[in-house]
Amino acid sequence: MKIGILGAGQLGRMLALAGYPLDFDFVFLDPATEACAAPLGEHIHADYQDERALAEFCVAVDIATYEFENVPAKTAEFVAGRIPLLPAPVALTVGQDRLSEKQLFDKLKIPVPRYMPVATREALELAVKNVGLPAVLKTRRLGYDGKGQAVLRKPEDLDAAWGRLGGQPLILEAFVPFQRELSCLAVRGKGGEMRFYPVVENVHRDGILRVAIPQASDPLQAEAEDYARRVVEHLGYVGVLAFEFFVADGRLLANEIAPRVHNSGHWSIEGAVCSQFENHLRAIAGLPLGDTGLRGHSAMVNFIGDAPANEALAAIPGVHIHHYGKTPKPQRKVGHATVTAASAEELAQRVAIVSQLADSVGD
Amino acid sequence: MKIGILGAGQLGRMLALAGYPLDFDFVFLDPATEACAAPLGEHIHADYQDERALAEFCVAVDIATYEFENVPAKTAEFVAGRIPLLPAPVALTVGQDRLSEKQLFDKLKIPVPRYMPVATREALELAVKNVGLPAVLKTRRLGYDGKGQAVLRKPEDLDAAWGRLGGQPLILEAFVPFQRELSCLAVRGKGGEMRFYPVVENVHRDGILRVAIPQASDPLQAEAEDYARRVVEHLGYVGVLAFEFFVADGRLLANEIAPRVHNSGHWSIEGAVCSQFENHLRAIAGLPLGDTGLRGHSAMVNFIGDAPANEALAAIPGVHIHHYGKTPKPQRKVGHATVTAASAEELAQRVAIVSQLADSVGD
Repeated sequence: MKIGILGAGQLGRMLALAGYPLDFDFVFLDPATEACAAPLGEHIHADYQDERALAEFCVAVDIATYEFENVPAKTAEFVAGRIPLLPAPVALTVGQDRLSEKQLFDKLKIPVPRYMPVATREALELAVKNVGLPAVLKTRRLGYDGKGQAVLRKPEDLDAAWGRLGGQPLILEAFVPFQRELSCLAVRGKGGEMRFYPVVENVHRDGILRVAIPQASDPLQAEAEDYARRVVEHLGYVGVLAFEFFVADGRLLANEIAPRVHNSGHWSIEGAVCSQFENHLRAIAGLPLGDTGLRGHSAMVNFIGDAPANEALAAIPGVHIHHYGKTPKPQRKVGHATVTAASAEELAQRVAIVSQLADSVGD
Repeated sequence: MKIGILGAGQLGRMLALAGYPLDFDFVFLDPATEACAAPLGEHIHADYQDERALAEFCVAVDIATYEFENVPAKTAEFVAGRIPLLPAPVALTVGQDRLSEKQLFDKLKIPVPRYMPVATREALELAVKNVGLPAVLKTRRLGYDGKGQAVLRKPEDLDAAWGRLGGQPLILEAFVPFQRELSCLAVRGKGGEMRFYPVVENVHRDGILRVAIPQASDPLQAEAEDYARRVVEHLGYVGVLAFEFFVADGRLLANEIAPRVHNSGHWSIEGAVCSQFENHLRAIAGLPLGDTGLRGHSAMVNFIGDAPANEALAAIPGVHIHHYGKTPKPQRKVGHATVTAASAEELAQRVAIVSQLADSVGD
């Protein structure tokens, strides 16, 4: 089976690495010249709006998927009109707009932080009155890794935030004084079969994920699965979906969903029986889903900006190196390590060592 | 780092899958049109004797290795004269000739079955007198998976065996009434660092490996490591070497070595902390070696001739599918499954199920 992937970044690369053993081949469509998945398949080097390239892509593959959520709606429609595109484009539509995403959560009775859409400077004043301060002003579209966001702590912050973000559709969200950030990775097969990975505790810095640690038996596992189930069933979703939550006062508040494999699930390559990448492929190819259970203790440390030398990483027991083949650049995710260990204590020690290494070369 | 691999079969394919996460890129040289590693790197499609292609190969890569032991000596010399070729060609020279291999074992005081070189029909008579019957007549070169062998049980078998194999350098080996077949995978780094995987119990049928099960604490582990250590140290070997043994009367008898990653180590992708493929790459790239320890219970089942359908395999918990992207053909290794389980009993059950599936479609 030949699988087409819209996007050829690290997620596409890791999908391909998981897919060859299943006898899949890969075609990527990506406008980037330095597309890091390209060595692992055929690369159609074109814009997502290029209908001739999209037609070529559709002829070349049996089914298609995507590795980023900002696939233009017209691109998704074009592809889905010709070949099976999974997850179905509706997941893109919902996830691309923070407002429609929040409205979906409301509809599915999933708790969310207070929010209000903001179109004008006046609407921002009103939203601050309703939502309260501190709050976070976000663009409704195209934000990721903390980009397109401004924290409002006091009324005087509004002008600067508006100056930076105003003029596009925005949303104001109450700032959640969270104790933890959790994500839940769900996978749903074509026949409706569903599996959930153990919830992951995520540590961000500067809006970028740094460390992700799967939780063997988190008290919020059932609640997270319940909310994730509501979303994937409502969307008739096929594939892996990531659901990010805040934990405040011991309960989950929905933050956002990503209709794709997710950075907070990279530990699953070594830390789960079947990785998120393989399970996404199994789902869209119509295969039985794989076991999402843990294999011992594991965690993931991101390499941001640059990665430590292989010599240093390979010397640490239980460390699995994952470079993405990308040129180092500030704030860029260039790789990660999955850290495995025999106990929680050993894991914590190794994560500390790898994090220190990552910080010493990255940003 | 760009790594060149002589050969682009399934071993090259699995080396590349293990190598991309370490930031390595791959160039393969292989005369086959259907070279199954080709989609995972650049493929120089040429004969091993083609010096122009070999020169191109040497310019394209930083270091080189090989994935099969029958690399022509002149090819190895050509490459080793231009770039680092690891393991060093001496390992090829020794391993390509069953007689020199046996003589090396003798020299290193590693027990071997009785043997005698056979050049003529008369020499065969003499060898049978010395070695005894039953015995196995083998070509000294180019034998694999039971090819180029004839079992002699009674004096009348000599004519047929000579008729089939005579006219090329042969060796007669005593038939060992073994209780088990074991292999030991050793890896040695550039600085002499050495690691050994747990010994593997191998089950062959029709001369082809069918099932390989790593042994958590085999009483012969230390003896196997001792013998493997003698060989890799004597050869100044860098990379993974496989050493196959017979177990007779509770002791090891050397069968043969393979200067490369080996079919009996495929379980290590999921069953060891660091796979044989990653450790081979770490060794030749000069990185610290990875942990060869087990991750729970695992075993490998080969797919010979054809592979069961993904739908059936993916439905069995703990089964990891590895297709090689090869066209089905009698006796051809087209894939394998690593079976993982929580206990030895569960492992045995799952191996039985997968073996039955494999037998139902393969040969």
